Amino acid sequence: MVDVLTDADITARLQPAAAVGWMREAILAAHEGRLHTPPRVSTDLGDGRLVFTTGALTGEWFGYRSYDSFDTEPGSQVVVVHDWSTGAVRGIALGNELGPRRVGAIGGVAVDALANPDATTLGLIGTGAQAWTQLWAIATVRPLSSVAIFSRDQVRRTAFAARVSAELGLPAVAVESARDAVEGRDIVVLATNSPVPVIEAEWIAPGAYVTTLGPKQVGRAEFGPDLVARADVAVTDSIAQTSAYDPPFILVGSPQHDRLTSLGAVLAGDAPGRTGAEQTVIFCSVGLAGTEAYLLARLVDSAHGVQ
Amino acid sequence: MVDVLTDADITARLQPAAAVGWMREAILAAHEGRLHTPPRVSTDLGDGRLVFTTGALTGEWFGYRSYDSFDTEPGSQVVVVHDWSTGAVRGIALGNELGPRRVGAIGGVAVDALANPDATTLGLIGTGAQAWTQLWAIATVRPLSSVAIFSRDQVRRTAFAARVSAELGLPAVAVESARDAVEGRDIVVLATNSPVPVIEAEWIAPGAYVTTLGPKQVGRAEFGPDLVARADVAVTDSIAQTSAYDPPFILVGSPQHDRLTSLGAVLAGDAPGRTGAEQTVIFCSVGLAGTEAYLLARLVDSAHGVQ
Repeated sequence: MVDVLTDADITARLQPAAAVGWMREAILAAHEGRLHTPPRVSTDLGDGRLVFTTGALTGEWFGYRSYDSFDTEPGSQVVVVHDWSTGAVRGIALGNELGPRRVGAIGGVAVDALANPDATTLGLIGTGAQAWTQLWAIATVRPLSSVAIFSRDQVRRTAFAARVSAELGLPAVAVESARDAVEGRDIVVLATNSPVPVIEAEWIAPGAYVTTLGPKQVGRAEFGPDLVARADVAVTDSIAQTSAYDPPFILVGSPQHDRLTSLGAVLAGDAPGRTGAEQTVIFCSVGLAGTEAYLLARLVDSAHGVQ
Repeated sequence: MVDVLTDADITARLQPAAAVGWMREAILAAHEGRLHTPPRVSTDLGDGRLVFTTGALTGEWFGYRSYDSFDTEPGSQVVVVHDWSTGAVRGIALGNELGPRRVGAIGGVAVDALANPDATTLGLIGTGAQAWTQLWAIATVRPLSSVAIFSRDQVRRTAFAARVSAELGLPAVAVESARDAVEGRDIVVLATNSPVPVIEAEWIAPGAYVTTLGPKQVGRAEFGPDLVARADVAVTDSIAQTSAYDPPFILVGSPQHDRLTSLGAVLAGDAPGRTGAEQTVIFCSVGLAGTEAYLLARLVDSAHGVQ
């Protein structure tokens, strides 16, 4: 029978250390050309669009994620994985969980590769699903001694910090300002939908690592050109996907863009990542295509004892 | 919970009269602009492609079928239907059955609209899934008094005729030649993969109706220009899809192509179909996009008492 996983199943079965390991594999496989991640395709259905991101790991599986732009409740994403040899459906996931979990796990891979080895303090802006899964994954690659959380809604940030403490076992506190959250932190995570900068570059400590998950286009970004100018190293999980941005990717036109490195190249040792403890590194997370299917394939395999 | 239907479920639950009724609705809805059926999209995954045909019935549902061109066993098609308002997944079908069933049901709609009212004899070339579902559906719109079946493999055609008799309750016999199958029949069904003509136009009786399911491109077709020249009326379930053929649709360049009519227009009374008992009508079945999702949506609704 085909496994059809719900959000509750994903939440219960997907362990962060395994997810980070699988996303490291996926990013390396994409770098090596074994994971095919073509541009997404979509169709116009009048009042909305259906969008398909596809992927294939040569010799193992092929699959896709579908989502829509209709004016509906979220939660209707579908991820399907087929066996490479037989074409049989190996797994289906329905809902919202797999997407943020794979982005979180990619964030864990990036922190592990690009933050200083002794990084222990983390500042987070945002309290949504993407913010949650970043902490879920990063906690498996660095022993976090403190997590400072800010969002504009005082009730939400307090509740989020309490939930992080209770469910992830992290020493989390809600703070009064974005500056209080990020100033002097080893690891900074921006997980907002803000089209305008939510932090100033001068708050970022020398040697810090910054993940940006939210908007990062020219004229529409959760951080400003000041942070771009400050970054010694700029890395992304998909240069192809940043190149497709319209308006353009915020790094376009900056010296950092010319040096933009793929995380896969860093992991493979084909490009330098961080080369000094005082460097400021920015990781522009775009969600490498095909990784939802990758995560589902590994999760289904592990449940069947293949892994 | 989400209904995930297997081939066995489709076979057990889908009744041909209901399927024909739903496909008539679908063809009319497409004609009226309520059923959106955009061109299919696909992505290149190295050793194969993933292909998506999508559809939406305004105000009711949106969905898609996915299939692949990898060198795999058949049977890995996925059909998904989402609720229009909430986006929630209403049904999923896995396997091979839904595709031929909807083509069969469309064939039933076409026979009902375009064959003579007193048509009772049927000649069939082919013994595959498409051949089977045509008989399954056509039997609900005309009382078939005889079914003559030919394919090149004597063992297969004999077994197929026996199965048609046993499972569909039709008076079916295997015959020795294509000519024996189609000559003088009221209804002719071509359901082959042949790139060269399998019949000659002179075998087709005046007043006959012909469905062609197999190849129908210039230089690659299961029937020849002689049959095209003989057709008084030419109808298809999707003019848009025939226009996208490469090599071109076999009717291109013939007077019949200039008069090519959509089945939806005939059903709606916006275009003439058959206008005389002696006319020869050819129905070029291409499998209107979006109809697998339509069929699944109706099947799931009917199981839940919505229909």
